[in-house]
Parts: sequence; structure tokens; C-alpha cells
Amino acid sequence: MAPTDETERPTLWRNARLATMSAGLSGLGVVEKGAVAAAGGRILFAGPEAEVPQALAAGAETVDCGGRWITPGLIDCHTHLVWAGNRAKEFELRLAGASYEEVARAGGGIVSSVNALRAAGEDRLLAETLPRLDALIAEGVTTVEVKSGYGLDAGNEAKALKVARRLGRERPVSVRTTFLGAHALPPEFSGDKAGFIARVVEEMLPAIAAEGLADAVDGFCEKIAFSPEEIARVFDAAKAAGLPVKLHADQLSDLSGAALAARYGALSADHLEYTSEAGAEAMGKAGTVAVMLPGAFYFIRETKVPPVDAFRRHGVAMAVATDCNPGTSPLTSLLLTMNMAATLFRLTVDECLLGVTRNAARALGLAAETGTLEAGKSADLAIWDIESPAELVYRIGFNPLHARIWKGRIWKGTGR
Amino acid sequence: MAPTDETERPTLWRNARLATMSAGLSGLGVVEKGAVAAAGGRILFAGPEAEVPQALAAGAETVDCGGRWITPGLIDCHTHLVWAGNRAKEFELRLAGASYEEVARAGGGIVSSVNALRAAGEDRLLAETLPRLDALIAEGVTTVEVKSGYGLDAGNEAKALKVARRLGRERPVSVRTTFLGAHALPPEFSGDKAGFIARVVEEMLPAIAAEGLADAVDGFCEKIAFSPEEIARVFDAAKAAGLPVKLHADQLSDLSGAALAARYGALSADHLEYTSEAGAEAMGKAGTVAVMLPGAFYFIRETKVPPVDAFRRHGVAMAVATDCNPGTSPLTSLLLTMNMAATLFRLTVDECLLGVTRNAARALGLAAETGTLEAGKSADLAIWDIESPAELVYRIGFNPLHARIWKGRIWKGTGR
Ligand SMILES: [Zn+2]
Ligand SMILES: [Zn+2]
Repeated sequence: MAPTDETERPTLWRNARLATMSAGLSGLGVVEKGAVAAAGGRILFAGPEAEVPQALAAGAETVDCGGRWITPGLIDCHTHLVWAGNRAKEFELRLAGASYEEVARAGGGIVSSVNALRAAGEDRLLAETLPRLDALIAEGVTTVEVKSGYGLDAGNEAKALKVARRLGRERPVSVRTTFLGAHALPPEFSGDKAGFIARVVEEMLPAIAAEGLADAVDGFCEKIAFSPEEIARVFDAAKAAGLPVKLHADQLSDLSGAALAARYGALSADHLEYTSEAGAEAMGKAGTVAVMLPGAFYFIRETKVPPVDAFRRHGVAMAVATDCNPGTSPLTSLLLTMNMAATLFRLTVDECLLGVTRNAARALGLAAETGTLEAGKSADLAIWDIESPAELVYRIGFNPLHARIWKGRIWKGTGR
Repeated sequence: MAPTDETERPTLWRNARLATMSAGLSGLGVVEKGAVAAAGGRILFAGPEAEVPQALAAGAETVDCGGRWITPGLIDCHTHLVWAGNRAKEFELRLAGASYEEVARAGGGIVSSVNALRAAGEDRLLAETLPRLDALIAEGVTTVEVKSGYGLDAGNEAKALKVARRLGRERPVSVRTTFLGAHALPPEFSGDKAGFIARVVEEMLPAIAAEGLADAVDGFCEKIAFSPEEIARVFDAAKAAGLPVKLHADQLSDLSGAALAARYGALSADHLEYTSEAGAEAMGKAGTVAVMLPGAFYFIRETKVPPVDAFRRHGVAMAVATDCNPGTSPLTSLLLTMNMAATLFRLTVDECLLGVTRNAARALGLAAETGTLEAGKSADLAIWDIESPAELVYRIGFNPLHARIWKGRIWKGTGR
């Protein structure tokens, strides 16, 4: 990776159609005859080509986009990308009719991911994770969120988050890390949720915050995971450490997780299949983003769809993410995720595209930094061989990416 | 594309794990310490490395596969790959709440694909189709079936099939073509199905057969398309022309399409969501392959799953294909299709993998030619960076292809 040169000559991408995703414009903020200029890793101008400042145009290195579409670089705002091992065998056993108990006896389930991550060194963990990151990058992703949650003790949670930070040094991509200690009960705390939450709150979270390893704190609020009261303890500790919160909420049942997230001013509440109208209303008032994760919905064959209409009614911004994880969403295509959000959840094309750009940035607290084509933001762009932005949502298993720009520079392939 | 040299030195891929898909072995026909040798485009040996004939090993150019898995090259046995234009707008309108009538008024529906194909020249049609083919090839596909059915008159059906044949000259892939004149009623025959079927039977099919443009004949038997009696007329004409038949059967309702296909000894019956037990039984007796098309099931949000258990009970071989088409399955990933067949239809991992290899070959009448790693067959291989074949089904939106061999040669990328 070459460092960004602050004094570089500006680059001007011209003869393009822009989906700026700007909140000040309607829909996708389309500019039909558009141009984007950048220098020092920042967007200097994005708008009609006719309005590019003369001085800028004169001094810039110009790229003719041949009428192609430019969107902001895509943002995957919910992943569990760092894991070790492989749960394909478990998938195979389930299809062959094995019960959850049989799968567990065969070494499957989340415990297998915990054991594998604990056994893996940092370098191996990095090596196993990079191909997944590369798959996302190859589709125009320029920012990715990565959660811990398979370490479940101070050392292994820190290890996972260090690997997440390293991803951002190994590849030309922005990484945001999230501490998800309250993900599952580790074997050594079996039967003692209170004890584990105390450990998360008193030991793990403060240590990880002190090391600067996490940009946010997440939890899994569910009958099979942690109660709203337990999550509230974690959120209190996050607030004390100065970290924003987000929540896996109402995925399998309605524990009022959405309302809990809203009460803490969470950046996002995620999954939300069973969220109530009141939960949606609370999120709307709090400005908490609803992160749709249709990959998990699809993979676990859930039938209850998140209350998309309620989110619309209450002005809740919706994001869309892969939830990439080995147990319930082994999904490494954000383009396909958009198709799933449209096909399975009936999000509109605009909602899907805003959900992997502007609203995904908001779900990460990065609204001022990325997610739209606007002057001052990071020059993160994706240039596409498409006739209309709808194609990015409509097609299934096809990648029309022409070029990916991260911090103002074109990166071939994964930038290695 | 370099021609196959019949006198070339053999190549030996060693230190590999094989999923031979051989019918003589159980499951995927796994050989743990395996090797494949090929020359002149044909497999000379596939089996345990310890059993490679000495003379062959001595004279061969050797490739160390580093313990990677080798499967037969994948086969997509049902596509409508050749089309012009783009129906993303229609997708967008539907998500925004437009009715079918509104979509039709906005120029959507199958008629839009018919109009676009008729307006496109051969070269443009080829250029629009190649990126879709390249997406399939990039995932290890070495044989692809391509149907006509958007031309719907003699000249335009022939044009589409000529483009399909050209695909096989432009890219290192085997193409099988299928004449699908009885796909939909063209606008000029509105209200006159009998007249159109007469045209298919008396004019289009004989002309296309005479030109050698089709390897098989297909039809769409459905209330919104053609009746069993109309399809029977087409099948009679196919038999008279010496062409095998296949059928889009029982996708939206049970018209006993499966039994009709079986009665004609069809290579395959495809879709089959509404097929009855009797239909499955008839297919089993006739040896007609059941082609599962979960992409269309997913895209149109069908809820009735094909009777997979009945197919198992009656010994019906199952294949899995993309159904790649602009209206109901804009899907260009056969790997993802396998995941859909497992997730949505509960096919086992083995059924999915046999469904894109051995059984897909059978659905194309190519059982003797490809689909397994066995001496005498075309040396079509895919080499994968995976720990177990189950990974090919389990992962979503990830391509672990290491190398693709078509007719004994390694082709980088799409072989251009
Ligand atoms: Zn998650
Ligand atoms: Zn079809």
C-alpha cells in the first residue's frame, strides 16, 4: 500500500454519471453529466461536470469514465469477518438431517468457532480472514466493520480486534472495529451469564478500550444469548469508556432490543426481524440506524421479515450488510446482499443502495467521513460498468465493478 | 483459443484430492490421494496416485496440486444466456409497488426481451452475452447449455442459436444449444397459440434442425405459456427431426408436465415445483433428470418447493442450474445456485455437487462425455482452494477456484 501523498496533483474523474447519495438531493442524488475531483485522499468536488472549478480542471490529472456510473465506495457495516476454521461440515450434517445436538456432538456450533479462534495465532487468523476481505473489496467495498465475539476472553478478544486493525494495514480499505464480548457464553462460564457479563464489563471492555482496539461496542440481545438487563450493563460500561454502542436486536424474538438500543442512543440496531412498532418508533426518535441482514435471514430460513414499513413510517434510516460469519451467514458479497434485501425484505432499489453507502456510514458513526460523493469526504469511489444503479441490486452473482478508488487512489485488484 | 494438440505430451495433476463423481463409487466418489492424467483433451487416468501407470507418470508434464481438490468442470445445464437489453428497471418498478400491468405499460415483461433480441445484431448480442458467460466460466464452468426463446420467429431464433454456438468459439467452454421456440407467444401471434405452435412445428423447428443449430428442443408447459397438447406437437416434431427433448414443467402449477416429459423420454424436466408424486414416478421410470432451478424460485418468491423426497424415492437424478435469464433469474453464479438448492430446497451437499456435474451432464445427453473424472471423458476439471467439497455449497458469494482445465488445458481467466 502506497501512502497518500497530501501534496499530490488532483485527479478528476469526468464523463461520468454520479449517484452521489447526497442527503440534500432526492433519491440517489443522481447527477447525469457528472465529475468527481479529489486530492490528498479527499473529495474536492462532486457534481455536474459543467460546474467543476476552472482552476481545478486545469491542474488535474483527468480520467475519462466513458459515461460509467460512480457511486461512493460501498460500506459493509456489520461483519464478523475474523474467524478461524470452517463450518462447512456442520452445514453438510444439517442438510443430511442431523439435529442440533448431533451437530454439537460432532464439534459444530459457535463453540467450534470460539475454540478455533482461541487456537489460532494472529498471523494465521489474518491469513484466513484476508480472502474474505478480498472478496468484499473486489466488489467495491472501501469501508468494512469487523466485530470480535469468538474470543470471549480478554486476550482472545484483543487478538481478534488486533487482526481486524491489521486488515486495514494489509489492504487498501478502511476498517472499523467493534468489541462484541457479549456475543455468546464461553464454555468456561457455562451456566454463569452474570459472571461472564461481569467479566466483560469489569475486565475485557476496559482493557480493550484502553488499548484503543475498538471503535464501538456491540452485544447479542436474545433468549439464547443475553438479556436486556445484561446488555444494559455492557452499554453502561461502553458509555463510561466513551465508546458508542450498537446491538444485535430482536433477531429471533422480540425482547425490545430495538428500544433498548434507542434508549442508549445506539448507532444502530441490527437484524430486527421481530422488532415491534414501538421499537421502530423509538429508533426513529433516537436516530438509530436499522441494519438489515438478509443473508442470515436467508441462511437460517427465517420467515418473519423485519418491519420495513414501520421503519419507513418512523423515519428510521436503513442500512444493509452481509453479517459475514461462519455460523449463520457465510456471505462475502455485498452486491448479493442488496439483492437479498430487495427480494426477501422488499427494500426498494434506492433503499438498498443508500443502505450500503450513506446509511451504512451512519451506522458506523462515519456520516461525516464517507458514504456520499460530497466535497470534504474521503475520496472512496466505485466505478461501475452498468446502465443504471438498479442493476447493482437486480443482478445475482455478477460483479460489474470497473474500478475502486480508496482515499483518492485507484487500486487494482485487492491492492496487493 | 489454442486448438487441442492430439499428439501432446500428457499432463499429470498429482497430489490432489478428487471428487470424481463416478457412479461406480459412493457419494462424490472421493479419492483422497489422487491424480488425473490427460492428453489430447481426454482423461487418460483418474484415481489413486499410487495407481498411475508408470509409463504415463514417466512421460507426463506434472502439476503438483498441493493437496487441493479436483472436481469435474462444472456444468450449467439450463440457461437462457443469450439476451439483449436489461430488465433492471422492471425489477425496480416492481419493488416500488408497480403492478404487472404498470410494468407492461412501462415496456417490461418478456416482450421487452423479445423486442430487444430482435433489434440486436449478432455481434451486439454476442457482446452482451459474453460477460455473463465469463462470470460462469470464472467459477469453473466448462459446459453450458444455452436456450433460444426470445426470438420467436425463424430468423431470430436462428440468430440466438448462432450466437450460442459462437460463444463456444469465443471462449474455452463447451456449449450445448436448445431450441425453445415454444417459450412464449410473440406479439404478432397474440390470441393465436395454435397458429404459433403450427409455425414452430412446421417452419421454425425443421429449419433450425436442418441448419444443425440445436442439440435439443425445449418448451414451456404452463397456463401462461403452452398446454401439454401444444407441447406434445412440438415434441413430435423434435422426434421427427431426431432431436432429444426437455421441458419447463410444473413451475407455477401442475399440468402434469413431468409426466409428459417422461412419456417422451425427455433428457430432463426442469423447475418442477408443482410436480406430483405420479410425475416423479414417471420421471424415475423414464430416466428423465429433474433439473432444480432455485434461482427462479428465489427471485419470484415462490413458496412451493419441488418434491425432492419424491424424486429420491423414485430414483430420479437431480441436477442444479442457474436458469440464467433476465426476467426471473438474473443469476450468473453456479456456486451460489448450489447454496440456494441446499438452503431453499434442502438438497444435500452431495446432491448439489452431483447436480452440477454428473447429473447435469446427463440432463444434456453428455453422460459419456463429461461430468465425472473418468478415463475417456473430456479432460474438463476444476481445481479448488477448499478444505472439503462441502465448502463449494456452504459459502455464499465466494469463489475459491484455483484453476480451470477445459479439454486438458489450463485457461487463465476466461481464456481470452
Ligand atoms: Zn452479527
Ligand atoms: Zn428456463
